[in-house]
Amino acid sequence: MSAVKSEIEIVVRSTEIDVNGHVNNAKYLEYLEWGREDWYEQAGFHYDVFLQMGIQTVTVNININYRKECRQGERLFIRTRAERAGNSSYVLQQEIVNEAGARCIDAAVTSVTMDAAARKSTPIPEQLRKLFPHND
Amino acid sequence: MSAVKSEIEIVVRSTEIDVNGHVNNAKYLEYLEWGREDWYEQAGFHYDVFLQMGIQTVTVNININYRKECRQGERLFIRTRAERAGNSSYVLQQEIVNEAGARCIDAAVTSVTMDAAARKSTPIPEQLRKLFPHND
Amino acid sequence: MSAVKSEIEIVVRSTEIDVNGHVNNAKYLEYLEWGREDWYEQAGFHYDVFLQMGIQTVTVNININYRKECRQGERLFIRTRAERAGNSSYVLQQEIVNEAGARCIDAAVTSVTMDAAARKSTPIPEQLRKLFPHND
Amino acid sequence: MSAVKSEIEIVVRSTEIDVNGHVNNAKYLEYLEWGREDWYEQAGFHYDVFLQMGIQTVTVNININYRKECRQGERLFIRTRAERAGNSSYVLQQEIVNEAGARCIDAAVTSVTMDAAARKSTPIPEQLRKLFPHND
Repeated sequence: MSAVKSEIEIVVRSTEIDVNGHVNNAKYLEYLEWGREDWYEQAGFHYDVFLQMGIQTVTVNININYRKECRQGERLFIRTRAERAGNSSYVLQQEIVNEAGARCIDAAVTSVTMDAAARKSTPIPEQLRKLFPHND
Repeated sequence: MSAVKSEIEIVVRSTEIDVNGHVNNAKYLEYLEWGREDWYEQAGFHYDVFLQMGIQTVTVNININYRKECRQGERLFIRTRAERAGNSSYVLQQEIVNEAGARCIDAAVTSVTMDAAARKSTPIPEQLRKLFPHND
Repeated sequence: MSAVKSEIEIVVRSTEIDVNGHVNNAKYLEYLEWGREDWYEQAGFHYDVFLQMGIQTVTVNININYRKECRQGERLFIRTRAERAGNSSYVLQQEIVNEAGARCIDAAVTSVTMDAAARKSTPIPEQLRKLFPHND
Repeated sequence: MSAVKSEIEIVVRSTEIDVNGHVNNAKYLEYLEWGREDWYEQAGFHYDVFLQMGIQTVTVNININYRKECRQGERLFIRTRAERAGNSSYVLQQEIVNEAGARCIDAAVTSVTMDAAARKSTPIPEQLRKLFPHND
């Protein structure tokens, strides 16, 4: 299976900047969530696919680097790819790049697969695991 | 100088929860920013103090753990304390605790002090450095 | 039945102001929603009360006047009261007042009661109607 | 001068919906603001044009009708046009239409032109007034 690579394009809107004229730190986490939604969609994991498996994914850690400020009107590209998978946790690697090609943000987002009924972590389903590079 | 420890209390509002009924991941970063604002205020670093020093602080990394979900109407406590200081960067440690005393979020937020005119990193001013534990 | 009058107190947070240093226009609508949630709570209309009645309330119009700008750190009071009720629609009147007692915002919010199953408007249930002044 | 008609296209994002799965009431006001920004841009009123005129525009009223709910992933079109101008106030008419052509939102947004120094209302500059239909 070839790797799923998602890229969405957005425009920084007036209500997304703070008093200094830059995109607010918290807003970037929204941008990244939009990117992950697209990655899941492309990977065939629409919301109800997990539901039917009885699985919920829960974000447990986000480690985000703020490298370059973004301003109103800028066109940004949010890229998401599978980084690595453990037993019940996996990491998506994301970056936000501006039109000049400069990397503004990068982030590693760690999620855990949970059994929705038991509310306990459960092994990553094979359908999801195979999207990650083989690490041995 | 005794350590500055900030705690602010908030209530989770209806517009801060997502489709699953929990506080959205990005919203916690707003909560944490509100906590840091209070820490700076208590430490005597009102916005114009840095301005007068010709210094800007820029957040360069946030590493956040999501430990427990929060829901509408919950009362939360956002705590912020100085963790460690390097030459031109420093780390504030933050946590969000619910009424039952459970830790919902913890995060390390790394900032850099910049010379506002030169737009280059500059050593942390002494007035800020002395708020951090002495690490030797 | 005595009138339900709700007042909640909030503090303007750093992430709620725009590039001009004022609370953003859209944010006030969030503040007003928080106020209405409190009004419904005080009136005994917790979310599940409407559910059990098979009723949904849908906001159909908001008419908001922006009278005075609010800034970060300001303490604001959001007041909500029942204004008038028609057959299947009703109006809550809201205002936001600052610590000096100046009215910053006032708004009339019109909602309609819907039969949740049929997705059609339905007369306001008596339990809700009696909270409104008698208009004859 | 031909009328300026602005239309921007957006996608409803996951962090913009509420617990009911619909776009939150307040969020629509952000969408409308994005639309007005585009209208001003197209009309040649970049932010600094008003500044150079010593003029500030302040929104004093928004009257918004919520006609149809919007959901995550929907593509929406935000349209803005000049409605009417008074002495120192003017109204922009806006609507949000979905892909099926249904009108989800319409709103009238009233703004006032202020002398930025005196902080008092001032007649609408001719450059702006001529963008409005001639009402006599």
